[in-house]
Amino acid sequence: MLLHLSSSSSSTSLPSSTVLDPLFLYIDEHQNEFVQRLREWVAVKSDSNDHTLWGEIHKILNMTANRIQEMGGQVEFADIGTQKLSNGESVALPPVLLAQFERDPNKPTLCIYGHVDVQPAKKEDGWSTDPYSLTEINGNLYGRGATDNKGPVLAWLHALETYKASKQEVPVNLKFVIEGMEEVGSDGLDELTRQRNESFFSDVDYIVISDNVWVSKRPALTYGTRGSSYFFVEVEGPKLDLHSGVFGGSVHEPMTDVITLLGSLLDHTGKILVPGIYESVAPLTEEERKLYKDIHFDMEEMKNNIGVKSFLQDNKEEILMSRWRYPSLSIHGIEGAFSDPGSKTVIPRRVIGKFSLRQVPNMDPAVVERQVKEHLQEVFAKQKSPNNLKVMATVGAKPWVANLNNPEYIAGRKAVKVVFGVEPELIREGSTIPIANNFQEVTGKRVMMLPIGGHDDGEHSQNEKISRYNFIQGTKLFVAFFYELSKLQKDQ
Amino acid sequence: MLLHLSSSSSSTSLPSSTVLDPLFLYIDEHQNEFVQRLREWVAVKSDSNDHTLWGEIHKILNMTANRIQEMGGQVEFADIGTQKLSNGESVALPPVLLAQFERDPNKPTLCIYGHVDVQPAKKEDGWSTDPYSLTEINGNLYGRGATDNKGPVLAWLHALETYKASKQEVPVNLKFVIEGMEEVGSDGLDELTRQRNESFFSDVDYIVISDNVWVSKRPALTYGTRGSSYFFVEVEGPKLDLHSGVFGGSVHEPMTDVITLLGSLLDHTGKILVPGIYESVAPLTEEERKLYKDIHFDMEEMKNNIGVKSFLQDNKEEILMSRWRYPSLSIHGIEGAFSDPGSKTVIPRRVIGKFSLRQVPNMDPAVVERQVKEHLQEVFAKQKSPNNLKVMATVGAKPWVANLNNPEYIAGRKAVKVVFGVEPELIREGSTIPIANNFQEVTGKRVMMLPIGGHDDGEHSQNEKISRYNFIQGTKLFVAFFYELSKLQKDQ
Repeated sequence: MLLHLSSSSSSTSLPSSTVLDPLFLYIDEHQNEFVQRLREWVAVKSDSNDHTLWGEIHKILNMTANRIQEMGGQVEFADIGTQKLSNGESVALPPVLLAQFERDPNKPTLCIYGHVDVQPAKKEDGWSTDPYSLTEINGNLYGRGATDNKGPVLAWLHALETYKASKQEVPVNLKFVIEGMEEVGSDGLDELTRQRNESFFSDVDYIVISDNVWVSKRPALTYGTRGSSYFFVEVEGPKLDLHSGVFGGSVHEPMTDVITLLGSLLDHTGKILVPGIYESVAPLTEEERKLYKDIHFDMEEMKNNIGVKSFLQDNKEEILMSRWRYPSLSIHGIEGAFSDPGSKTVIPRRVIGKFSLRQVPNMDPAVVERQVKEHLQEVFAKQKSPNNLKVMATVGAKPWVANLNNPEYIAGRKAVKVVFGVEPELIREGSTIPIANNFQEVTGKRVMMLPIGGHDDGEHSQNEKISRYNFIQGTKLFVAFFYELSKLQKDQ
Repeated sequence: MLLHLSSSSSSTSLPSSTVLDPLFLYIDEHQNEFVQRLREWVAVKSDSNDHTLWGEIHKILNMTANRIQEMGGQVEFADIGTQKLSNGESVALPPVLLAQFERDPNKPTLCIYGHVDVQPAKKEDGWSTDPYSLTEINGNLYGRGATDNKGPVLAWLHALETYKASKQEVPVNLKFVIEGMEEVGSDGLDELTRQRNESFFSDVDYIVISDNVWVSKRPALTYGTRGSSYFFVEVEGPKLDLHSGVFGGSVHEPMTDVITLLGSLLDHTGKILVPGIYESVAPLTEEERKLYKDIHFDMEEMKNNIGVKSFLQDNKEEILMSRWRYPSLSIHGIEGAFSDPGSKTVIPRRVIGKFSLRQVPNMDPAVVERQVKEHLQEVFAKQKSPNNLKVMATVGAKPWVANLNNPEYIAGRKAVKVVFGVEPELIREGSTIPIANNFQEVTGKRVMMLPIGGHDDGEHSQNEKISRYNFIQGTKLFVAFFYELSKLQKDQ
């Protein structure tokens, strides 16, 4: 991982300010138009969770396509098949929008991924404003999709518009992959990527994703995400639920087994007790350790935000590492047991404990699955229970990590410096964003995550927002990123 | 506990067959009328869970009262106050029916408790027949309330009718306490018992309850029930649910704490690990141990019925003792955790583990509560968790045990012998029947449980039934019980 970034770029081209200053001026002067366009986009209720609203997804995809076509791009609505609804009916999935512009072989080709569907939102869920009516309060633009992910998608389009309107040559070849099913698991996208790997993706140099947020008030580049496996530990006993008064004390209760199994997974420090689980975790290098020093993470502020008295670790670096670069295990609940308010005295016949294990490089989900299953089977054997144990796992996604020495990260760092005047924080995501790893695995292309959303944007929550500052400076960041990426190529 | 029952009753009165045979004949000859009356009672949808059906409870209470009045009894509908519904509305509870007959100071006074409300039942829950239309198939009378508890209440009334119709003097003074809210917790009954302790209950010698079932195909007398306390272990952490990807590994998760707490309660043999919990359990005497030998409990049949491969104990005596005379602990579930199907990756902010502890003589619920709380607090302290622990307990009921030497049990054993030709099984209930202990605690009177329902009657289940055999022989049992109780008194 590179840490020393040459600060003098010995370019033969014009000084960056000559190129970028007029572009930035254009953005500042047109910011109200950009916000207005975001307002129009937010007004489209493209909630992918509700298939009766998929018409709205078609609408926003068309709006996106029109904008791209107006700027000279070619668009294709790629069919990704159908989905079976719970009533048995099959419905066509909203297509994925693939777009490209005339290609200059001397420029690097950047493929931008984004999505225009949103999470559900209703005023009565606790929104202070109408979620589908973008509302500016104290410099923040509140509305569903403002930061996730309509704002960033628009910022990319506005960055392109800025070059075009300013009669400046766009310094990179651009492609777009814009989908409408991200919030429900990106149905069909992986398959489409595979299908188009030899065509659409073949001349792509970089794939960039702007679908996450910073970790503090400072801009950030994201170079890693954790993977995830979800485990179901099912213990089945009697053929019917039993009365705990009548049978309590005489039968092996499935709940006792499941509680023991779940209780064997981790200790009070959060350490995972599954033998071998830490074996393939990438060792922490001195270089990587230093990365964590520079991150502005306010432990006290975070404690207040989430309302905890302490973390499992007692300093910033260890907290961040435990979230980003070490595996973790969380127990989520038990299906089949009594979960309502009140005091039912049932012995449930069949219960399913549920937990997930976040994985990091270089853990292999298949090995993890085997280790967890063996561990649980061993613990269960000691229970001498006549009940049946079944352990099932689903792999959500593999962990992903990028090399910070890659040109896209160097360009990103330079662009951040130009726009914000500071070095970006180099961060990871503790959560799982399958798209980054999926693109990288299928296409073999370099993938980067370049967020412009603020750390307090509240994706998926009530009162989602993007600040006007982040939306407009983010547009500048993308403009500068195009420039730095192409300059880097020329400099090489 | 007495085990040697004098088999020769040196009575100066008539031989029992002289008295009882004509009565038994009357019962046999009128059995179809008795079944028809049960059919009329079952047709009344007196489901106390549904307050819109409380009119039906009034109806069946009136039917009961009319029957008693026809036989010369005096009835009173005792007001037991109101209940607040979830919508805030207050509704008057169905009254408790108190009834008595002219009193002869030379006869023992027996107070019969029963209830005429039922559990909910719908054909579509899986009933083979209409639950409110008594249907006879292969000698079984299927219908909601057939065994719990309309059948037994009617059997008492029919026993009285038998004496009256046969122009024989009823050998005991009878009182009745018939309620309509048993299935929802006998609201107000305890308070009413307290209020009438110096009046209605003052001249009562024995209280008899016929609201449980046998444990095998053989008749039984029940001399004990377990008590129960319900525990809520609440752990509260962050002020909002957290994303396990973002925060997993850095925060003390309430679920980890609760799983550890629940996991500390019992070992894989079912032994409760709370220190001191077994200290006050009444020691097992050799005499008591012998009681278990005579009980017809078919381990293999029970295994098949409930679908388990084995019990925690490997012989009949120990299985029954673990269900009846030793405490047990069952973990029922967790409120606040993820309990639906699927794979949500939430870190719940607040979870409540729920378990109950069945208590036996001479455990004191207050001591048990203290022991459990101290144990959980100690385990939690070792977790070094910054989360908040709250342990709450509700005492359902105290355990109850009767002395088998008491006259009512001796009379019961004789009556069983007369009607069924065998010694009754002397059994307990593992489950908690608060009514027995409550009556005993408040009134100080001798309480007895005298079941006539079969072990496979399926109280609270689909296809609840009582067999015609049990219903009719049960009526004879009650007739004989009146006789034996009075004879015992005369003999003394």
